[in-house]
Amino acid sequence: MYSGLGFQTAVLMKGRFKDMDKIRIGIVGYGNIGRGVEMAIRQNADCELAGVFTRRDPSSLKIAAEGGKVYSVNDLPSMKDKIDVCIICGGSATDLPKQTPELVKMFNVIDSFDTHARIPEHFANVDAAAKESGHVGIISVGWDPGMFSLNRLYGNAILPEGKDYTFWGRGVSQGHSDAIRRVEGVLDARQYTVPVESAVEAVRNGENPELTTRQKHTRECYVVAAEGADKARIEAEIKNMPNYFADYDTTVTFISQEELDAHHKGIPHGGFVIRSGSTGDGTHKHIIEYRLKLDSNPEFTSSVLVAYARAAKRLADEGVSGCKTVFDIAPAYLSSMSGEEIRAHLL
Amino acid sequence: MYSGLGFQTAVLMKGRFKDMDKIRIGIVGYGNIGRGVEMAIRQNADCELAGVFTRRDPSSLKIAAEGGKVYSVNDLPSMKDKIDVCIICGGSATDLPKQTPELVKMFNVIDSFDTHARIPEHFANVDAAAKESGHVGIISVGWDPGMFSLNRLYGNAILPEGKDYTFWGRGVSQGHSDAIRRVEGVLDARQYTVPVESAVEAVRNGENPELTTRQKHTRECYVVAAEGADKARIEAEIKNMPNYFADYDTTVTFISQEELDAHHKGIPHGGFVIRSGSTGDGTHKHIIEYRLKLDSNPEFTSSVLVAYARAAKRLADEGVSGCKTVFDIAPAYLSSMSGEEIRAHLL
Repeated sequence: MYSGLGFQTAVLMKGRFKDMDKIRIGIVGYGNIGRGVEMAIRQNADCELAGVFTRRDPSSLKIAAEGGKVYSVNDLPSMKDKIDVCIICGGSATDLPKQTPELVKMFNVIDSFDTHARIPEHFANVDAAAKESGHVGIISVGWDPGMFSLNRLYGNAILPEGKDYTFWGRGVSQGHSDAIRRVEGVLDARQYTVPVESAVEAVRNGENPELTTRQKHTRECYVVAAEGADKARIEAEIKNMPNYFADYDTTVTFISQEELDAHHKGIPHGGFVIRSGSTGDGTHKHIIEYRLKLDSNPEFTSSVLVAYARAAKRLADEGVSGCKTVFDIAPAYLSSMSGEEIRAHLL
Repeated sequence: MYSGLGFQTAVLMKGRFKDMDKIRIGIVGYGNIGRGVEMAIRQNADCELAGVFTRRDPSSLKIAAEGGKVYSVNDLPSMKDKIDVCIICGGSATDLPKQTPELVKMFNVIDSFDTHARIPEHFANVDAAAKESGHVGIISVGWDPGMFSLNRLYGNAILPEGKDYTFWGRGVSQGHSDAIRRVEGVLDARQYTVPVESAVEAVRNGENPELTTRQKHTRECYVVAAEGADKARIEAEIKNMPNYFADYDTTVTFISQEELDAHHKGIPHGGFVIRSGSTGDGTHKHIIEYRLKLDSNPEFTSSVLVAYARAAKRLADEGVSGCKTVFDIAPAYLSSMSGEEIRAHLL
């Protein structure tokens, strides 16, 4: 019977890595994810920050790391020998489709590209450039896509006769919050995606329900309206917004900027991936559930990115090149422990 | 946003595999796991049963598969060209330490070796034999060790500053049930391992409690006593049994054989792996929870074994040899879908 580590992995790892062995990570872009990666590197004794690369004026950027260096993205080509892996922290809409195939010509790279429909195209672009240059590019790393994807894959492979369910939340959707802010008369807003409890319970009970979009999630909006704005119109405009809200049961609550700042400044998120399947003659049901409850969506995503940066370095050292996803990476590559250690402590 | 498969994987896969492409699986040993593997092969359109191999008289064995062939284990050497992967379904105490290193000399093999403390030794034995013969041997496959191990590894790699918790149950422990049956005056027994709800909740809430053995699980025993047996003595003997029960809060309930047969014949199990960690300056907490709720412990274990048999075949086709664990296998190898398909449907 598994006995557990009984101590923090970080403690086990502390002090075992000489500076020369460390994985040198470049952070490209310094938004929420870039800052999260910087924090995550500090928690991984075998990693170090090679530099933060920005499109802004480097002298204008103050980063968290004491003595951490900030460069212009234009300096990247001159840093080829000083960086093992670049973690590209741009947006999926316009940054990553351009940056990832470009940078993989010079570096091993990781990104968190999350536009599910465009993954095949992004994969092909990164793969071609990575193979030509002999680098590794791991795309769509994070929790969805990422850890949730892995759990969908494992669930499907183990229980081929079954159904997949993914629920998101309770958590803040930046995209939906931004959409509300674009409504006339709205000063600020925060939108929470909330899984419908009864739907989750039905899935957990093995009922395999067919669920519409409306039956799976509700949307809670906290809105700061401009003085004198027509709140009824704002509420109607939000609730009827196609793609974002029209297909959901949406609640709109008007609050003051002070209330929003006091109670809705965090970026929590999470969700569930459930595989509900059966074996034998179908009478034996099985539920596999993977659940995340995250205080900080960007910091957790960043932590996943750094673990996969470790994998990218190791794969590159083995001579592997091309585009990879979480599906292609053996779990052992993510751990700073050796094969013997993980078999002894975690198997 | 991920849209889901919307249909069963089995349907997608149906009819795409010609017989000549199928993975030919040999089942060595026909107990609960062997029968489960036979069932699981039917759910995987790219797999087929090459034969069941038994130490008993083959003519005495009736298997579930219509037209399925039963052989003596002594016939295995003559079947080298007719089997792609052998799934060895023996016990961890005496069968697997002997069978797996022996059979990997002739076949790619999978086992569910689950004596955690002896895994390093078993790994070394299988690795040496597998490398010499050029085969792949994947050991300790199932859910613990197996899927639970994977989740411990992923959790540790993503959240290096944190704590691991593994809870088992509610489920039947065969070992504990057997131990009760050895008590004088006991005719039959069934033991359930039950996680302590309040402990699970404390962990889920990010409280990172230090938990003793007694605080994590309770043990429920349903016992059929012989007529006239001293029930007080039986109960005391069970509750004080070292290793098995002495460190737990144990309840003993005497029931009739009829009640046991009616309500306690199933072999359900399951449990939770929880990684509770923090990021940033430690203020942001994250909970990663992996949960299994299984109607049939052996059928689920068998389903995992068959998925890894697919991986063994693919690795062997690539020229890989040696001993592997679930840590060493990229998730994509488990799926019957192609790389393009899993990226399009599951990422």
